Amino acid sequence: MPGQITYVGDRSQENTEIDVVSYDTENYNRSKNISIDETFKMVKDHPDQVHWITYTGLTDVDQLQKIGQLFSVHPLVLEDIANTKQRPRYDEFSEYIFLTLKMIYASDKFIKEHYALILGENFVISFQENKEDDILDFLHKRIETKKGRIRNSDSDYLFYAITDAIIDNYYNISEAIEQKTEQLEDKILSAPDHASPEEIQVLKRQILSVRKSVAPTKEIINRLHLSKHQLFSSKTKRFLADLYDHILQVNENIGIYREIVWGLMDMYMSSISNKMNEVMKVLTIMSTIFIPLTFIVGVYGMNFQNMPELGYHNAYYYVLGVMFIISVLLIIYFKKKNWF
Amino acid sequence: MPGQITYVGDRSQENTEIDVVSYDTENYNRSKNISIDETFKMVKDHPDQVHWITYTGLTDVDQLQKIGQLFSVHPLVLEDIANTKQRPRYDEFSEYIFLTLKMIYASDKFIKEHYALILGENFVISFQENKEDDILDFLHKRIETKKGRIRNSDSDYLFYAITDAIIDNYYNISEAIEQKTEQLEDKILSAPDHASPEEIQVLKRQILSVRKSVAPTKEIINRLHLSKHQLFSSKTKRFLADLYDHILQVNENIGIYREIVWGLMDMYMSSISNKMNEVMKVLTIMSTIFIPLTFIVGVYGMNFQNMPELGYHNAYYYVLGVMFIISVLLIIYFKKKNWF
Amino acid sequence: MPGQITYVGDRSQENTEIDVVSYDTENYNRSKNISIDETFKMVKDHPDQVHWITYTGLTDVDQLQKIGQLFSVHPLVLEDIANTKQRPRYDEFSEYIFLTLKMIYASDKFIKEHYALILGENFVISFQENKEDDILDFLHKRIETKKGRIRNSDSDYLFYAITDAIIDNYYNISEAIEQKTEQLEDKILSAPDHASPEEIQVLKRQILSVRKSVAPTKEIINRLHLSKHQLFSSKTKRFLADLYDHILQVNENIGIYREIVWGLMDMYMSSISNKMNEVMKVLTIMSTIFIPLTFIVGVYGMNFQNMPELGYHNAYYYVLGVMFIISVLLIIYFKKKNWF
Amino acid sequence: MPGQITYVGDRSQENTEIDVVSYDTENYNRSKNISIDETFKMVKDHPDQVHWITYTGLTDVDQLQKIGQLFSVHPLVLEDIANTKQRPRYDEFSEYIFLTLKMIYASDKFIKEHYALILGENFVISFQENKEDDILDFLHKRIETKKGRIRNSDSDYLFYAITDAIIDNYYNISEAIEQKTEQLEDKILSAPDHASPEEIQVLKRQILSVRKSVAPTKEIINRLHLSKHQLFSSKTKRFLADLYDHILQVNENIGIYREIVWGLMDMYMSSISNKMNEVMKVLTIMSTIFIPLTFIVGVYGMNFQNMPELGYHNAYYYVLGVMFIISVLLIIYFKKKNWF
Amino acid sequence: MPGQITYVGDRSQENTEIDVVSYDTENYNRSKNISIDETFKMVKDHPDQVHWITYTGLTDVDQLQKIGQLFSVHPLVLEDIANTKQRPRYDEFSEYIFLTLKMIYASDKFIKEHYALILGENFVISFQENKEDDILDFLHKRIETKKGRIRNSDSDYLFYAITDAIIDNYYNISEAIEQKTEQLEDKILSAPDHASPEEIQVLKRQILSVRKSVAPTKEIINRLHLSKHQLFSSKTKRFLADLYDHILQVNENIGIYREIVWGLMDMYMSSISNKMNEVMKVLTIMSTIFIPLTFIVGVYGMNFQNMPELGYHNAYYYVLGVMFIISVLLIIYFKKKNWF
Repeated sequence: MPGQITYVGDRSQENTEIDVVSYDTENYNRSKNISIDETFKMVKDHPDQVHWITYTGLTDVDQLQKIGQLFSVHPLVLEDIANTKQRPRYDEFSEYIFLTLKMIYASDKFIKEHYALILGENFVISFQENKEDDILDFLHKRIETKKGRIRNSDSDYLFYAITDAIIDNYYNISEAIEQKTEQLEDKILSAPDHASPEEIQVLKRQILSVRKSVAPTKEIINRLHLSKHQLFSSKTKRFLADLYDHILQVNENIGIYREIVWGLMDMYMSSISNKMNEVMKVLTIMSTIFIPLTFIVGVYGMNFQNMPELGYHNAYYYVLGVMFIISVLLIIYFKKKNWF
Repeated sequence: MPGQITYVGDRSQENTEIDVVSYDTENYNRSKNISIDETFKMVKDHPDQVHWITYTGLTDVDQLQKIGQLFSVHPLVLEDIANTKQRPRYDEFSEYIFLTLKMIYASDKFIKEHYALILGENFVISFQENKEDDILDFLHKRIETKKGRIRNSDSDYLFYAITDAIIDNYYNISEAIEQKTEQLEDKILSAPDHASPEEIQVLKRQILSVRKSVAPTKEIINRLHLSKHQLFSSKTKRFLADLYDHILQVNENIGIYREIVWGLMDMYMSSISNKMNEVMKVLTIMSTIFIPLTFIVGVYGMNFQNMPELGYHNAYYYVLGVMFIISVLLIIYFKKKNWF
Repeated sequence: MPGQITYVGDRSQENTEIDVVSYDTENYNRSKNISIDETFKMVKDHPDQVHWITYTGLTDVDQLQKIGQLFSVHPLVLEDIANTKQRPRYDEFSEYIFLTLKMIYASDKFIKEHYALILGENFVISFQENKEDDILDFLHKRIETKKGRIRNSDSDYLFYAITDAIIDNYYNISEAIEQKTEQLEDKILSAPDHASPEEIQVLKRQILSVRKSVAPTKEIINRLHLSKHQLFSSKTKRFLADLYDHILQVNENIGIYREIVWGLMDMYMSSISNKMNEVMKVLTIMSTIFIPLTFIVGVYGMNFQNMPELGYHNAYYYVLGVMFIISVLLIIYFKKKNWF
Repeated sequence: MPGQITYVGDRSQENTEIDVVSYDTENYNRSKNISIDETFKMVKDHPDQVHWITYTGLTDVDQLQKIGQLFSVHPLVLEDIANTKQRPRYDEFSEYIFLTLKMIYASDKFIKEHYALILGENFVISFQENKEDDILDFLHKRIETKKGRIRNSDSDYLFYAITDAIIDNYYNISEAIEQKTEQLEDKILSAPDHASPEEIQVLKRQILSVRKSVAPTKEIINRLHLSKHQLFSSKTKRFLADLYDHILQVNENIGIYREIVWGLMDMYMSSISNKMNEVMKVLTIMSTIFIPLTFIVGVYGMNFQNMPELGYHNAYYYVLGVMFIISVLLIIYFKKKNWF
Repeated sequence: MPGQITYVGDRSQENTEIDVVSYDTENYNRSKNISIDETFKMVKDHPDQVHWITYTGLTDVDQLQKIGQLFSVHPLVLEDIANTKQRPRYDEFSEYIFLTLKMIYASDKFIKEHYALILGENFVISFQENKEDDILDFLHKRIETKKGRIRNSDSDYLFYAITDAIIDNYYNISEAIEQKTEQLEDKILSAPDHASPEEIQVLKRQILSVRKSVAPTKEIINRLHLSKHQLFSSKTKRFLADLYDHILQVNENIGIYREIVWGLMDMYMSSISNKMNEVMKVLTIMSTIFIPLTFIVGVYGMNFQNMPELGYHNAYYYVLGVMFIISVLLIIYFKKKNWF
């Protein structure tokens, strides 16, 4: 329903928590679990500081609406923040910039977390569902310990730094895909019996799922680094161009693994066929050697009254000899055909 | 035949019914089953209200023509309204805007309904074949109960809201495709005997059919949100941009399921091959064990007069023992080859 | 050879026939089988009428050259008219417009007819190889009976109407392809023995052949409706935009059948594999049941002097019973494996 | 090594031969085997004539360098002339235009010849490795016999005419590919035993090799006909647009055969599978009929002392009868299954 | 971490070595293993000479930072130099140009070396991990021996010459791929038993890995030759356009081998199927001939008391004769079916 903010994720009602880190070159202050009004006051009172507002827990729609009123955020943006299934998106407004992308964790199933960012004149608000943001922890530490450029830069650099941290983590995802692909490949080649088409299909789906987040992110970062919005300083734009390069590389890597995994089903098929060939050969060799011998012994098992050979003294041994020669010849024939 | 309005759908002659909902912030009025002339008068008499004219039943070409004359609609537009096989289309005229797209219902076969919209200064005319528009019911309720922005907005927002409702329903379609794909995948992996290439082919066709409607809709919504037509306020354009984002996401989802379903035939083939491998193994194991044994018993079934072994007292038991050892050795051999 | 007009088709020398239909809102005149000079005089003498000149039979190069001189047509255009293998083409000159496309008849093999059009100020010349133009017959009737817009419009509308008639016929082709595809699909699924890879290949070729004509036509119609040539009135341009929509739709339909037909070979392969699986199962079941039984009867066919069982009174019946139990157990085993 | 002219082809040192054809509307003169200095003098002395300089044999780098100095050709152009593996290329300089493409001869292996052209104010220099230019012979004759437009046109028309002759020959290549494809297709369908995956692979390679020359030529001709270089008259540009149309058509044809040939491997696979199916059926029918019969005769070959049936007078005939009925029933069963 | 220079390669800490070659048309000087400060002084003191600074060993981040300060290089560029996994990149700054690409060595596994270049007014700095730059050795020799254009040209030509040397080496890579592809193809066709799906997969990966470097290099060289940076003279731009042509050709070649290698798995599958067919035929022929014969001998091995044939004098010979005829007929049947 247009113009109506609805939480779409699958979490139960949780408390919203707002943390604010305020800093400039000299000062640093971290306020934990404060109210939206306090947050807004802080941003207004310290216009020369950069404020990173971490908003955790998206289930409480009223809180979101309050944020929207105070910071004059467009209702559609609030909708996209609450809609955790929203695809990556970038939108420019006169006073602020909105970006949403996916944090991906390289566990067994590539868990995707919805992550949204609003960049204003002197603040960045980041929205996420839960707090386990180990991907961004090091950023907090760098701000606190004054490492790197962040403390000397404006809010646009903070915005860049957060986005960069998320996208750099995509490299881990691409490496996890690489590893899974290689393991499956090895399994198919060495023990096709233990591999199954299901595993290939699961890996395919995972790659498609990751690509679904990464591909639109690529477009978005492209628009970001070409943006002419006044919030981005020319200094930061260099960094955004660098970011675009990173997402391009991740995208290419995933593209390569896509090609390889799409070829695995064929590889699996040929491994199965090879196995079947081997089974067929065993059957054929055994049958081909014993079928004529069984026929011969059948002949001398007939009960005709007049079968002179039966009376010859060494006939039995001669027949055994002939059968031995036949089987040796057949074995030589199969050897020549490289059947074993 | 150019310039000639012809109904193309497969319904028999039905009555046309025109309903009009007229509203502004304060007033709301719903008129059911009124004539075209009354409708036109209403639109002219209340220029400050927004009129949503619902035109149901496309078989009566004369009525359409009358609408065309009163609202000065181009004959080609009337043609496209009556042509229920028309692909999604967007066309701008100086006085009005024309849009046609497909409503898709996620039943067994993804039924598509032709739906056309004309946006004028203070009215929206929607054309459809039958009345079961549960997709749009909630919109009527929101207008009546003054929920959301519609009552405070112009006709362009109503136009957006209708289009948005139809496109949001595409998410259901994409989810239905997801579900069908997963069911079929499970079936192929767990019981390939009960799956058939036909089911894969049917799903393929359904995806192609949905994509046939969604892909041109994507282009159209793109042109819509980039349109510079004076009927669209800048406020509404934000919403149209959002709409474009939705159709992009639906399109990507369908693209992903397309890739997965296109891979199912290969998966089915490898499942079949696996089954055949299993059958072959059973045959080979049985044959390979019993063929040499049958040969041995054949040997001692021969009727040669001079076969000394036949006279040995325990020969029979020795032979039985030898055959037992042979079969045990062969079973060990197959175990080693991981054949069972 | 550049600048040399050569007939390239596979018809023998035929007489050229020129028919002219001249009309304006009031007057209508049809002249059959007249000379080129008369035709030219007619066009010059009645500048306010629209003249549709139907030129049938392309083998006589001299006649073509005469037309070229009188109507000052570029030699390259004459070349393209005589070259019946020319791909669809659109070319603008200051005084006239040249268009060539393919009429396709949906018979068994999708016969393509070369069709060329020259649009001048007050005339349209259409060139074709033979007269069986049932696709265009209805146009002649509409002009004669004053139906539709043609009689009230200029030559550009006639030009549009002819092109539209040809392209609308592509819908029949796309439906014929649909029908053939579905028939073949059914055959492969229900009776793969009666289908053959050849039929799939033939259908593939037909689709490629149709697409070869339709795809460049799409580009051409795009250029046509974007053309700024003074011969096209703004009124006609709306119709040309509509035409573009039609060719887009045909192209999409063919694209869909292409995807389906390209998947048929895989479907055929899996149908064959299914059949083979069934054959293998019959063989395996029969062999697996009888091979051990045959071994058992072989055992008691041995001629050892000391085989106590042979003397037991009911041994024969016990052995028969044991064999019966073995075969029942094997049948249960196969039932459990869902082999029949 | 940049800026260094090196012959790259696989011919041994050969003499360079320069022939010059000089003409205008009235005069015609052909000089065979003259020196570079004479050639240059001729071009300078007759500025109003068109000179077609045929330079044959690219192994002598010094001669090339001399040409470069006299006609002030850029060293990179000379490099590309000597590099017979150079891909098709088009380059504009203020005083001249450089074009290199591939002549392809439709023999067994599609021999490609490197061909380079320099178009100056009143001359065209063509470079090639050897003289067997039957593709261009007819052009020489047309110039000599004053046929066509060449004698009345400038050097740019000669440049066009040569390029056109080479590209028109691509139609022969595309027809040769068509023929080879159809032959291979027939072979695979009628006698898959005599076809081999190798033949398909060879045809694939040939198509890829031709496409490698044709695809970049397409781009080049596009740039050529859009060129605004002052050497091209507007009259000639019409012809260059026509040329672009030809190369587009060739490219489309090759694209179609590419699609067909890429599908042949699948067709071959299904032909093989069909054959295997047939083999399997023969084996299964024979085995299934005789295996139970062999079991029955085994039963009555057992040596139990108490087997009453053995003593019955007509038992033998009854058993023969039963076996006959069993085999008839099995044959009926297979007939019903359409196995033969 | 943005803005932090980190060595990413897999080499242990190594000493950085800086060599400088300074030259103009008359002078040439090579300084080995000098400090960064000396290098910088040299560049400043001789503004009219071109300085090629070879910086080997990227592990020492502090040295890199020092270079950055002296030559005022942007920190992101330093990051990309130290990041040996950086994808090919091109970046323009007001005072200098940055380029990084991959040197590829055609050994067994296509070793890729990270290579970065900075082009300044009168210097080129090249960064690489180790010294074994045989690809560039010949360039040093040409500078020393005054061969070619380098000594008479500015730093931009040196920059071009280095890039050209690296890209020309890609031709060797493309030839190595060609050779490997052909060897594998031959193996699959002549001895599918000795080929394995693994080899195809390995070759696929190698091609994907090379393409991963070559494809972005293509884009980069395109931007390079279209660049309007004041550091590039118009003379050098001609050469850069030539370079673009080279990388296009390499890219096309790799594309062709990609298509061929992607088809090898199908070829392998059909080779395996052919083999299996052959195995099946041997089994079927043997079984089909001996199964009926074994049945016949079984019949006359039955112990019925009343089997008149057993008593006939030549019955045994007749039966042998009948069996011989049956086997001859079956052999003729298989011959007719072309089974051997």
